[in-house]
Amino acid sequence: MNLWLGKLSKTPPVTLRTPAETARFELESFFPHTPFDLYEQTDMGDAYQIVPGNDGFFSITGGSTGLLYGAYRLIMDTLCGKALSGTVTSEPKYSLRMINCWDNADGDIERGYAGRSLFFRNGRLEYSTERIQTLGRLLASVGLNVLCINNVNVHYPAQLLLEDYLPDLAALADLFRPFGVRLMVSVDFSQPMRHGISTADPLDPAVQAWWKETAGRVYAAVPDLAGFLVKADSEGRPGPFTYGRNHAEGANMLADALKPFGGVVVWRCFVYNCRQDWRDTKTDRPKAAWEHYAFLDGEFAENVILQVKHGPFDFQVREPLSPLLLGMKKTKLAMELQLAQEYTGHQIDLYTMIPMWKELYEELPADNIMSIAAVSNLGDDENYTGHPLAAVNLYTYGLLAWNPDVNAEEAVARWCRMTYDFTDDQEQTLVSLLLSSRRTYEKYTAPLGIGWMITPHEHYGPNPSGYEYDLWGTYHKADRNAVGINRTHSGTGYLDQYPEDFRRKYEDPAVCPDLFLLFYHRLPYDYRMRDGRTLIQRIYDDHFEGLEETRVMADRLLALPFPEPDASVIRDRMNQQLYSAREWCDIINTFFHRLSGAPDAHGRTIYD
Amino acid sequence: MNLWLGKLSKTPPVTLRTPAETARFELESFFPHTPFDLYEQTDMGDAYQIVPGNDGFFSITGGSTGLLYGAYRLIMDTLCGKALSGTVTSEPKYSLRMINCWDNADGDIERGYAGRSLFFRNGRLEYSTERIQTLGRLLASVGLNVLCINNVNVHYPAQLLLEDYLPDLAALADLFRPFGVRLMVSVDFSQPMRHGISTADPLDPAVQAWWKETAGRVYAAVPDLAGFLVKADSEGRPGPFTYGRNHAEGANMLADALKPFGGVVVWRCFVYNCRQDWRDTKTDRPKAAWEHYAFLDGEFAENVILQVKHGPFDFQVREPLSPLLLGMKKTKLAMELQLAQEYTGHQIDLYTMIPMWKELYEELPADNIMSIAAVSNLGDDENYTGHPLAAVNLYTYGLLAWNPDVNAEEAVARWCRMTYDFTDDQEQTLVSLLLSSRRTYEKYTAPLGIGWMITPHEHYGPNPSGYEYDLWGTYHKADRNAVGINRTHSGTGYLDQYPEDFRRKYEDPAVCPDLFLLFYHRLPYDYRMRDGRTLIQRIYDDHFEGLEETRVMADRLLALPFPEPDASVIRDRMNQQLYSAREWCDIINTFFHRLSGAPDAHGRTIYD
Repeated sequence: MNLWLGKLSKTPPVTLRTPAETARFELESFFPHTPFDLYEQTDMGDAYQIVPGNDGFFSITGGSTGLLYGAYRLIMDTLCGKALSGTVTSEPKYSLRMINCWDNADGDIERGYAGRSLFFRNGRLEYSTERIQTLGRLLASVGLNVLCINNVNVHYPAQLLLEDYLPDLAALADLFRPFGVRLMVSVDFSQPMRHGISTADPLDPAVQAWWKETAGRVYAAVPDLAGFLVKADSEGRPGPFTYGRNHAEGANMLADALKPFGGVVVWRCFVYNCRQDWRDTKTDRPKAAWEHYAFLDGEFAENVILQVKHGPFDFQVREPLSPLLLGMKKTKLAMELQLAQEYTGHQIDLYTMIPMWKELYEELPADNIMSIAAVSNLGDDENYTGHPLAAVNLYTYGLLAWNPDVNAEEAVARWCRMTYDFTDDQEQTLVSLLLSSRRTYEKYTAPLGIGWMITPHEHYGPNPSGYEYDLWGTYHKADRNAVGINRTHSGTGYLDQYPEDFRRKYEDPAVCPDLFLLFYHRLPYDYRMRDGRTLIQRIYDDHFEGLEETRVMADRLLALPFPEPDASVIRDRMNQQLYSAREWCDIINTFFHRLSGAPDAHGRTIYD
Repeated sequence: MNLWLGKLSKTPPVTLRTPAETARFELESFFPHTPFDLYEQTDMGDAYQIVPGNDGFFSITGGSTGLLYGAYRLIMDTLCGKALSGTVTSEPKYSLRMINCWDNADGDIERGYAGRSLFFRNGRLEYSTERIQTLGRLLASVGLNVLCINNVNVHYPAQLLLEDYLPDLAALADLFRPFGVRLMVSVDFSQPMRHGISTADPLDPAVQAWWKETAGRVYAAVPDLAGFLVKADSEGRPGPFTYGRNHAEGANMLADALKPFGGVVVWRCFVYNCRQDWRDTKTDRPKAAWEHYAFLDGEFAENVILQVKHGPFDFQVREPLSPLLLGMKKTKLAMELQLAQEYTGHQIDLYTMIPMWKELYEELPADNIMSIAAVSNLGDDENYTGHPLAAVNLYTYGLLAWNPDVNAEEAVARWCRMTYDFTDDQEQTLVSLLLSSRRTYEKYTAPLGIGWMITPHEHYGPNPSGYEYDLWGTYHKADRNAVGINRTHSGTGYLDQYPEDFRRKYEDPAVCPDLFLLFYHRLPYDYRMRDGRTLIQRIYDDHFEGLEETRVMADRLLALPFPEPDASVIRDRMNQQLYSAREWCDIINTFFHRLSGAPDAHGRTIYD
């Protein structure tokens, strides 16, 4: 199974060494009777120019990776029935287009819903060469060029990637190199302490020396390693705070070690108090990232990238753009998305993400972000993403990372066309189901931006108060009169972290978009929405609609002629989604009905 | 560490073969300068008579086990400072006084809070001989005589106890025999299917033949095995329902196999729908045991004992006596208690059970129960019960099983005196703290008999709605106006399962004892209690009182001069209990305050 590249020829031979060689192989295999020229021009890097000639002839000019991206562009255009009609030039918006795998050395994947690790087994790097090549091809075909292979929570023995496993890491890098994919490694900030150093203090000379020596060894083995990814001082991970240092001091120390080799430090800005007292109404978790990082703007080294989750919480269905992404003008940033459907249906429920990503970009200044990352939805399931249709998220993420101006509908349609042999009508049905799937999921889960009404730890299925008295800082404080947290200036002040024009859009509930209403505001159930409905009626309506839409979706989806094995997997998961959607709809409605006592205006069944 | 027998001499030698020999050894060790006679009289069984003579001389008459029980009685009376002043005779109320261990073959204990198994390691019977002897002595000292060593949820390879591990089981039985402790084994109803038989249907001749042959083999190895314990058709376990048979057919088939060897089948009556839809208000889980068993009264074989949990749910802090224990007049029954503090504080929170057991006996006709069983609170922690003070539950359970008329305060005081060298004042403090500990725990947890407001699966700490929309059938349906389930005739009809005089006590909320009010009734928050308080105020008051009592308890307990290592363990666990009690108090109060909107009449802090 080759997903959207299923119509391509056999896997490229392992003898290929460079992206340019892979470009040639792919083009010769796909256009066996068409003459072409490839002009490698190093300074073009990832960019490419495709120029058509006579009688089908074409030429591609670009860096080695640019040639490969151009080749896939031409092949995929052809698969989509789009003939080359003139010169095509393209260059990526972001130089680092990253995938973060949360794979543990034992082969388990944290928040993985597509099987076990493609890279690790039994505490070692162990994999199928053919599957690695397929993965490399898939990533390259959509322009993704950095793959962090191990979990940001670095559990032993993943530390050995920088030690005993270095030759194995180098061998894996060799496999990905012909696809222009550079590896990255998540590192354990306290790793020097495994080597007789009594501290991991970033200002300690022995610690600095250890990281420099380590960087030297690592880059000797993997010269094109993209760098290190670090989760520090977060959810129990070690970090600079242990030594009274700030995160610039921590990140810069690592950056200094990587600088001679051209490596970057990707430093995750996911720091918050995960032992919060629910009685404490002053602390508001969404404020945490800004409070920990904004004051450090300008203090990070050139080769440090702060990787910031797209929203201030943790990949909920709807969150505002993180204020850090708008506020740190003198710092290199990467926006972190999550393809893994941790809170969004576990790759059981249909959930196509690109409409959400496009909404984020509407808030983002065009010049702000220098990189982009996404948590992987991959695993060793035969179809790589658990749900066959979840592959659309990997595909469209690549397109978005290359060019955020990508049209969502076109991107999804291209994926459908390459993946399935459908009629235009069938394809249009599938495209519309995929595009509407996120909004449907949003309707039957936690209402209007409130988030978190999900089963704790597992993160699948409803539990309206599961996090309410817990340590994670994610409270809705629903009572008999009202629901939500006031995050405006008059409340926790979260909204004050934003620029003026952004604040103005959300500060006043009368102006705030409905779908963010309960993210920013605490409102009574009889609050009158702009459309005249009460808040509670809007909650009921959304949930009944979400369930009904799921039922319609199921009917339409299951009528499509998917081939096996996709058809069986899609049917099984759709049935699970139907069950889950009913649980969500009824439980959320009952929860609010018990609190508010308000009847449904349309007399639909709300259970006692 | 020998718990309440810590002042006795070294462990008895392994050369002892019978309880009578152990009696002689214990007496000679404890009274080295006192002459005595033992008269073994087989027909007296467990009963004994102690007759004092001149100059400290005494004689004991009894069966072999009777001599042992008499010996421990004399030794423990002496330890408690009570001189033998006249003839003492005693016989137990119940012939089977059972402990059920939920130990898995891998050494884990289901719902165990005192370490790993004392019997199993790595999938095999592996143990310390000395610890087994200590355990045998502890059990015998309080008259407990049946020990089921493996979990009622029989996970592979525990099946091998009847197969390859039989010689190991026999060796373990040999170790317990000198203490009058007979082993029992939990069996897997589907076990014949491991041996080429395609069914476990109890009416199938091949199945019947397999169990008969197995019983023969097992009793050849362990002639005094007490019998088999069975959990069938419950929480995923196999059972007769699979084959369209009822539980009398299932139990009688096994009973037939054990009968030639004098063995009993202990059949647990813990059958309910654990996949219940929360929307279904007709099904009421407490009704399940009666519905599954009452109609079978009189159909069970002579050597079948139905083991019935003391309440209709599952070992909550307060439950009414199970209607089965009052209703099956033609069936042999055993009441099942739980020493393991599954829902009652995990052997972290102080929770002395005998006051609760005494309340159960107030409802129980004197002639009804023929046996008693308790789920073990034992493990391989140095002190055997995790919390040193949890040992009082094992000790007093033994005394209760021997004689349900035991005085709770005296029993607890005897345990304190044997275990610690305290002054009378200190002892009195400890006794009063232990006796009040259950009521304190009850006050800060789920109110007035409602139960289940505990963290799902883990069963420690508050989660007011953790089970509310789940599959387990344990709902409180608290809304903005009222809380509880009406289980009277006008509600689910649960109360109709009881005799008339019992029903009359609970049917009317105006008569129903306060502490059962929300078990039987759904009531509005402004319901007026008999003492004039509203229901909601009573809930607040209980919780504030429970927390305050815990604080006072901590001060008083930690001022006592416990020896190490007990002192450290008690201090650590008391601090955990203080944290937990505050969480319970505040979360339950906030939960009900959010629903009801009612202020506390005394203006104490209830968090938003």
